[in-house]
Amino acid sequence: MQAIATERYARTRALFERGLKVIPGGIPGHLGPVQSQFIPVDSYLFYVERAKGSRFWDVDGNEFIDYMCAFGPNVLGYNNELVDQAAARQSQLGNCMPMPGEIQVELAELLVETIEIADWAFFAKNGNDVTSLAVMAARAHTGKTKTVLFKGGYHGVAPWTQKHGRPGITREDLANNIYVKWNDLEGLENVIRRQKDEIACLMATPYHHPIFEDNALPAPGFWQEVERLCRANDIVLAVDDVRAGFRLDLAGSAHYFGFTPDLAAYCKAIGNGYAISALVGRDELRSAVTDVFYTGSYWSSAVPMAAAAATVRELHRLDGANLMLRLGSALTEGLRERAGDHGIRLRISGAPSMFYMSIPSDDSLRSMQTFSSECARRGVFFTSHHNHFINCSLTDDDIARTLEVADEAFDVVAKTHPKATQGE
Amino acid sequence: MQAIATERYARTRALFERGLKVIPGGIPGHLGPVQSQFIPVDSYLFYVERAKGSRFWDVDGNEFIDYMCAFGPNVLGYNNELVDQAAARQSQLGNCMPMPGEIQVELAELLVETIEIADWAFFAKNGNDVTSLAVMAARAHTGKTKTVLFKGGYHGVAPWTQKHGRPGITREDLANNIYVKWNDLEGLENVIRRQKDEIACLMATPYHHPIFEDNALPAPGFWQEVERLCRANDIVLAVDDVRAGFRLDLAGSAHYFGFTPDLAAYCKAIGNGYAISALVGRDELRSAVTDVFYTGSYWSSAVPMAAAAATVRELHRLDGANLMLRLGSALTEGLRERAGDHGIRLRISGAPSMFYMSIPSDDSLRSMQTFSSECARRGVFFTSHHNHFINCSLTDDDIARTLEVADEAFDVVAKTHPKATQGE
Repeated sequence: MQAIATERYARTRALFERGLKVIPGGIPGHLGPVQSQFIPVDSYLFYVERAKGSRFWDVDGNEFIDYMCAFGPNVLGYNNELVDQAAARQSQLGNCMPMPGEIQVELAELLVETIEIADWAFFAKNGNDVTSLAVMAARAHTGKTKTVLFKGGYHGVAPWTQKHGRPGITREDLANNIYVKWNDLEGLENVIRRQKDEIACLMATPYHHPIFEDNALPAPGFWQEVERLCRANDIVLAVDDVRAGFRLDLAGSAHYFGFTPDLAAYCKAIGNGYAISALVGRDELRSAVTDVFYTGSYWSSAVPMAAAAATVRELHRLDGANLMLRLGSALTEGLRERAGDHGIRLRISGAPSMFYMSIPSDDSLRSMQTFSSECARRGVFFTSHHNHFINCSLTDDDIARTLEVADEAFDVVAKTHPKATQGE
Repeated sequence: MQAIATERYARTRALFERGLKVIPGGIPGHLGPVQSQFIPVDSYLFYVERAKGSRFWDVDGNEFIDYMCAFGPNVLGYNNELVDQAAARQSQLGNCMPMPGEIQVELAELLVETIEIADWAFFAKNGNDVTSLAVMAARAHTGKTKTVLFKGGYHGVAPWTQKHGRPGITREDLANNIYVKWNDLEGLENVIRRQKDEIACLMATPYHHPIFEDNALPAPGFWQEVERLCRANDIVLAVDDVRAGFRLDLAGSAHYFGFTPDLAAYCKAIGNGYAISALVGRDELRSAVTDVFYTGSYWSSAVPMAAAAATVRELHRLDGANLMLRLGSALTEGLRERAGDHGIRLRISGAPSMFYMSIPSDDSLRSMQTFSSECARRGVFFTSHHNHFINCSLTDDDIARTLEVADEAFDVVAKTHPKATQGE
């Protein structure tokens, strides 16, 4: 297998050797091989040459049907023509200029029309930029300092979002965080009862999508009670919709689950890959956001705003969130069936447009790694222990081909991992 | 004057009214009118339609010669064709993809060749992303927590970079910062003597360029002694070259001043407006940077990397840093002369490619505001109390026209601000 992999990924391997010399770790961050994506290195590509629609081609010319969508930003399909044309038109005029373009106002108007809670929008680059702004604005608004977070939630890489003990993180970075368990209303009530005079903000993803764990939707009534507790105790309720935004509901994931936060942070889905993020919120928070000192060199750049406006309009035209939910349901139902054909109980959790896969009978996690690995070698790109992403350009043919590959991959899993078939 | 301004900026004013409804403060951040740029609102545009080379046109069709360069990113001239072509070529293939492109390796190799201290490069989006990474890496490397900063230095908008008392900032955000005065070696020595076992990092811009103050170059021997103190006390020396990078020296501003930091943060000048930032550093820090958990949705995007590679190559071809220093010298010498013709002593500080202007005889600052204002009304874009930026596309004709306008503006200043002419 080593020989096959070496041949299939010869250029990827050679480039990685070059990369290791001039980039710490070769490929840093969430795209780093193995450490982040947990696919056995043998079956894995490291560099992409081009991408179009639901597919991409690595530097060795291998073609893949993609279920990671660059970890979320690809929502309409790679290199969507409407989006790229809107970006190119703006690019002819200018991008990063001494003042914003008219498009900044247009895009804010469009988000205010689109997202239920949005009375205004603020633009930045990273999801982390706007989750951090949400916390700062909540502090400015309430005069309090602490933030309640759900254990295992991901809100970025700024020190305050990280875990104690990670390299570079100090005790002070985390001093204002309070952690409770997802769906644990009693735990939340206890924390609020004791510390309501210190708590400025509660930040959470609309449903719980940690890595290495089955994802968890909100329990019935959970969000409504969280909202009530926040309102009753002068706590700003901030939804981190960086990952789930527009993949559940164009009016906001909070609208999907039937509650009303004060702030919502967006990033991945709004620009179809062009670098932009946004914080939107209710009028009550407008003045606090104005007061916080917050800016960046590229935050008013016009090209990503033109791309984002085109993306949001196209998502409306396609009824994109419902389309991705339907495509995800078709895919995950097929995957579950194919797994069952081989005696494997595949667990799918989270929203179908952002599904997470596990084989719970094998707690070593190796069955899922073999599955992802066998799929990658056959041109279907899953990762092992992170939620996946559906985009609007996925076709019935893509899904049919994916299920053929999955069938072969589950066959390998069943034959090589006895635990995988002990679930029934 | 109100009537003239209203006519000249009718569309800017109408758009701002729309913007105020859907964006906190209308225009947020460093591009916000008045609060950040300190030009009387009357004479000021708020929205730009297009930009090319050294000029831009606002939404009312007014043309400006630009000395802000979008606060730095415009280094070769707006919409530089070589850069835009490189970006468009990459865009045809893909931008934000499931894995990086070959361009990530190429760009890192190019920065390693270009910047004297760079053994490796790490890419992100904001300047703030990489100044924060520098601090985290220094902590991971040394096992210590505190950072020494120079008072008035700007390193971004993350809470740790802000001032105590600003809305949204907590005591804990600043608990690990120690502030000393620029060029005050004795103060620095005292701090290091007392706290060397806690100090992980010293971060500074290569020279001091605060706002509202004359900028200050390093005193002779200052950097060499800072470097010696850091080496002797296991303190990581990090240069924040976000603003000055490539405007003093393509080999790094540290090379220009003759010292060797461990880390250098870049942003504005490396992509000519395409959103990218970079931390570069010495081999000693490579493993610490690899260990820090740090990533973002768009940080491996290929288009800004292609743009950055084209920008850096063109800066080499043009000997860009020296070109901008020469252009800045020609401009600032002319400005000083024209001011003198009207009996005004204009003080120019900082590097000529990033000059700061003041009229020290008027401590109300109003003379400079009138000067910027009169220039803006005549199509030359200066701000009042921030350093300016030169780009490589500035022509002799631009400078000649600027000096004509400045002559008229200084005439107005001399006639309306008696204090402006009391300097000699």
